[in-house]
Amino acid sequence: MSARRRIAIILHSGELDKAYAAFILTTGAAAMGMEASIFFTFWGLRLLTKGGLAKAPLSKMNMAGVGKKFMTARMKSQQVMSLEHLLQSALDLGVKLIPCEMTMGVMGIKREDLIEGLEPVGGVVTFLNDAKDADINLFI
Amino acid sequence: MSARRRIAIILHSGELDKAYAAFILTTGAAAMGMEASIFFTFWGLRLLTKGGLAKAPLSKMNMAGVGKKFMTARMKSQQVMSLEHLLQSALDLGVKLIPCEMTMGVMGIKREDLIEGLEPVGGVVTFLNDAKDADINLFI
Amino acid sequence: MSARRRIAIILHSGELDKAYAAFILTTGAAAMGMEASIFFTFWGLRLLTKGGLAKAPLSKMNMAGVGKKFMTARMKSQQVMSLEHLLQSALDLGVKLIPCEMTMGVMGIKREDLIEGLEPVGGVVTFLNDAKDADINLFI
Repeated sequence: MSARRRIAIILHSGELDKAYAAFILTTGAAAMGMEASIFFTFWGLRLLTKGGLAKAPLSKMNMAGVGKKFMTARMKSQQVMSLEHLLQSALDLGVKLIPCEMTMGVMGIKREDLIEGLEPVGGVVTFLNDAKDADINLFI
Repeated sequence: MSARRRIAIILHSGELDKAYAAFILTTGAAAMGMEASIFFTFWGLRLLTKGGLAKAPLSKMNMAGVGKKFMTARMKSQQVMSLEHLLQSALDLGVKLIPCEMTMGVMGIKREDLIEGLEPVGGVVTFLNDAKDADINLFI
Repeated sequence: MSARRRIAIILHSGELDKAYAAFILTTGAAAMGMEASIFFTFWGLRLLTKGGLAKAPLSKMNMAGVGKKFMTARMKSQQVMSLEHLLQSALDLGVKLIPCEMTMGVMGIKREDLIEGLEPVGGVVTFLNDAKDADINLFI
């Protein structure tokens, strides 16, 4: 077990705002010196396919008229990093991005469909072994 | 406090894919020798009513055209257990399935509406006592 | 690090039933003597704007015909506290309600738009520092 504090997230959701949450938490944790990983499963895994981030919807696009375009513009004006930059930043900071093997099979996603820089594919045991010694576990 | 490692999940969502995640995580944990429990609340509890699993929708049925029928067929072809088998497997492995008492009241669900093999009904204190000594806590 | 047991929740969702879960878990924990906090981000933060709770939708309003009006009536008849009372109860019990600074910027929410009684605004570091020493972490 590592002496460093650790956060282990499962990203199951494929929505833009949920992905933001996962990347902001893990890059923030890595910047604080923590170990950080995201296990991408179900809809979350689609974000790691080439071009997948650009297609992500907002979880409540029609709630009170706040749409994806508006939210993206507001984030830009507030100097919040784009999701593409956050993902690159996560990789640069050593956040481990782990694709779920079972989801790849179920969704017909191949290794070559995924972006570069990811960890080897993993399964439920990979996540559980990581999570059981982590200080923070979140299902997003 | 038990010496065995432990995972405690709240399943609040009623979607097929979220239920899969809860059962795959807990049966995986139990197979690794961990103690595992799922506290079924709100929409999650409906999955434990007789016939409830068959009625579960997919959380993003229309996302990119991936529907429930397609997903179920893909899972079968990939030899992923059906949700019904996963639930039975969870019971066989000693995963504790706990119905939320407050939800039963709010939704008008009676004990006899629920499937066999469950733990006694519990409340927020039941979950918190279980979760505070667990190594992994997830809200799904 | 405090000797008291602790729960730290991120409330990202803006739905009525998810907010109930967050408040029931934290007020329950506080009543058991635990320290409890909720970090309100994205749609969750809107619940803390003046009048925000009344506007919250149910996460699955059309699922099996269970609507917000029905659910609210059932909760009342089952003597479940209203969300407004739960929020007040949380404040009375010392549950820390923390608004996410980044979300305020992105959504154009100002301090004076928020209800009284909240903690100072915080960021990802605030949450991570709180969560890494907590016994229970949940993303709702």
